[in-house]
Amino acid sequence: MNNEVVVIGAGSWGTALSLVLAENKNKVTLWTRTSEHAAFLNKHHINPKYLKDVKIPDSVIATSDLEQAVKGKKFVVLVTPSHSLEKLLPEINQYITNETIIIHAIKGIDPVSLKRVSEIILECLPNLNANRLAVLSGPSHAEEVALKKPTTVVIASAISSTAEHAQDLFINKHFRVYTNTDVIGVELGGALKNIIALGAGISDGLGFGDNAKAALMTRGLTEITRLGVYLGAEPTTFSGLAGIGDLIVTCTSIHSRNYRAGKLIGLGNSLEETLEQMEMVVEGVRTTKAAYILSQKNSVDMPITSQLYKLLFENKDAKEAVEDLMARVKKDEHDDYK
Amino acid sequence: MNNEVVVIGAGSWGTALSLVLAENKNKVTLWTRTSEHAAFLNKHHINPKYLKDVKIPDSVIATSDLEQAVKGKKFVVLVTPSHSLEKLLPEINQYITNETIIIHAIKGIDPVSLKRVSEIILECLPNLNANRLAVLSGPSHAEEVALKKPTTVVIASAISSTAEHAQDLFINKHFRVYTNTDVIGVELGGALKNIIALGAGISDGLGFGDNAKAALMTRGLTEITRLGVYLGAEPTTFSGLAGIGDLIVTCTSIHSRNYRAGKLIGLGNSLEETLEQMEMVVEGVRTTKAAYILSQKNSVDMPITSQLYKLLFENKDAKEAVEDLMARVKKDEHDDYK
Repeated sequence: MNNEVVVIGAGSWGTALSLVLAENKNKVTLWTRTSEHAAFLNKHHINPKYLKDVKIPDSVIATSDLEQAVKGKKFVVLVTPSHSLEKLLPEINQYITNETIIIHAIKGIDPVSLKRVSEIILECLPNLNANRLAVLSGPSHAEEVALKKPTTVVIASAISSTAEHAQDLFINKHFRVYTNTDVIGVELGGALKNIIALGAGISDGLGFGDNAKAALMTRGLTEITRLGVYLGAEPTTFSGLAGIGDLIVTCTSIHSRNYRAGKLIGLGNSLEETLEQMEMVVEGVRTTKAAYILSQKNSVDMPITSQLYKLLFENKDAKEAVEDLMARVKKDEHDDYK
Repeated sequence: MNNEVVVIGAGSWGTALSLVLAENKNKVTLWTRTSEHAAFLNKHHINPKYLKDVKIPDSVIATSDLEQAVKGKKFVVLVTPSHSLEKLLPEINQYITNETIIIHAIKGIDPVSLKRVSEIILECLPNLNANRLAVLSGPSHAEEVALKKPTTVVIASAISSTAEHAQDLFINKHFRVYTNTDVIGVELGGALKNIIALGAGISDGLGFGDNAKAALMTRGLTEITRLGVYLGAEPTTFSGLAGIGDLIVTCTSIHSRNYRAGKLIGLGNSLEETLEQMEMVVEGVRTTKAAYILSQKNSVDMPITSQLYKLLFENKDAKEAVEDLMARVKKDEHDDYK
């Protein structure tokens, strides 16, 4: 509705979000790293590497000039890979004002600093008012969003009004947006679910069946909730779109890189062989390490993450890891969040 | 462990549970409705209609004589269709003592009386001590349990010691059992998830994609939790095996009748045509009616159940029902359990 919005990152998710924003009659600038890619997008209005066959409206203007992209924009949507944030953000900081609202749609935990994405953003953007930062997450394959298939996401920010501003920007009849004030929970749900997706892939690769996979997803959700609650999240967020919702999409779709990587491991490939075949970042591997360190440091019980860590980084046999999970002491389900 | 156990009902689930019990060295009697079927089971030790290719141990003794089956047994496991309970239970009542523990593994809500299975059981078994009744539920295709694929379930009873007795009976290295004291939640999770499975099938039948299905499952879980909490259940039970766990298995497996029925409807078949093609009871249709009546009576907001009810019983167009769901007012995710 005639808001000026810049989307930073022209991968599949950044491009799909640009389509939603443009459909809602916002003025959209799409920043991409190279001037060649920007020129290509402005000339052909398609993004064949990431979202082939989808027409990008002429109203979306691509650029590789960060100053031109960000300066004067009220809304900045960050959709870059997490590892490029620390390079990009200090430059973006120059163009931020008191009026800027930043919405990020990035999933991950830094395996060294153990920081969430919003923590990295606030650290690198001293000019940003912390109340004007939001996170968008939920079950949303970019390909389906681009095709206007019904999709539901959640936007969280520390204060409701920021989440509601962002909601107004994105919501339409096939892209439904819920708000939430639990930034920690929404960020951790999106990041930690990739661990369980790896596990679900391994279970399927081993031929264990639907019962085992559903149990793994359920108990996996329990333990990522446990860690999340310890780190300050609301438990109900993990029962929502950024928790279960995203977990379901990631564990049951062959489009998910983490699930596919897990399946290759379950079929007998080593981690190295698997990563070679994937040719793309498998976020869940980094996140497993981060979550394992967090759980050890804080004495939070995470049996699935712990077995996965041993399997990925200590050459534990996959079948043995599952057997060790099944052989744990008899438990009461209500011990869950302790 | 040499407990005397009778399993009432020799369908796929009753047979699979008999296999687990026998493997754990219990003395298992398997009751089936006809003497012909009992004789067949005792002669051939297979149950081809329900679980073909799986050998039933010789130690499992089949019978169609209810007195012989139940009398003197400490553990009675009920695995009959819910509609046959009212005929069977009064006869079973004669053979119950103060020592009997009953474990049922039946999912459903009576669409007329709106009662849960344990309410029906306690009403029809005045001789049973209410503290000695348990329910077994969770993500568990019988076919996979029979093949010893890793499976995890929950057993709930009003007092922990009963659930723990039942846990001891069933638990082994590939059949993991958690305990819980939330009988209402475990029963409602198992019953109400069939509504969402119907909806997930419809969504897939309409070609809506993985985002829509994950959103439907997530928001569906939210509304069945809302009804459950209103009826006295613990919200965390719905995040457990009898909630999400069972929901995942039922919504993502083509083995699920409810999911398949939904898919046929989504593809354009009427309810009548669908039920004709299914040739078996589709529990979710009855449960949708029961939940709809419960939600109306108690003013519990259940938008998905409500649209499904209109679609199933008032000829509402499926596409229109989904559009009405997506077009609802903007919401905060935290309004969930209100």
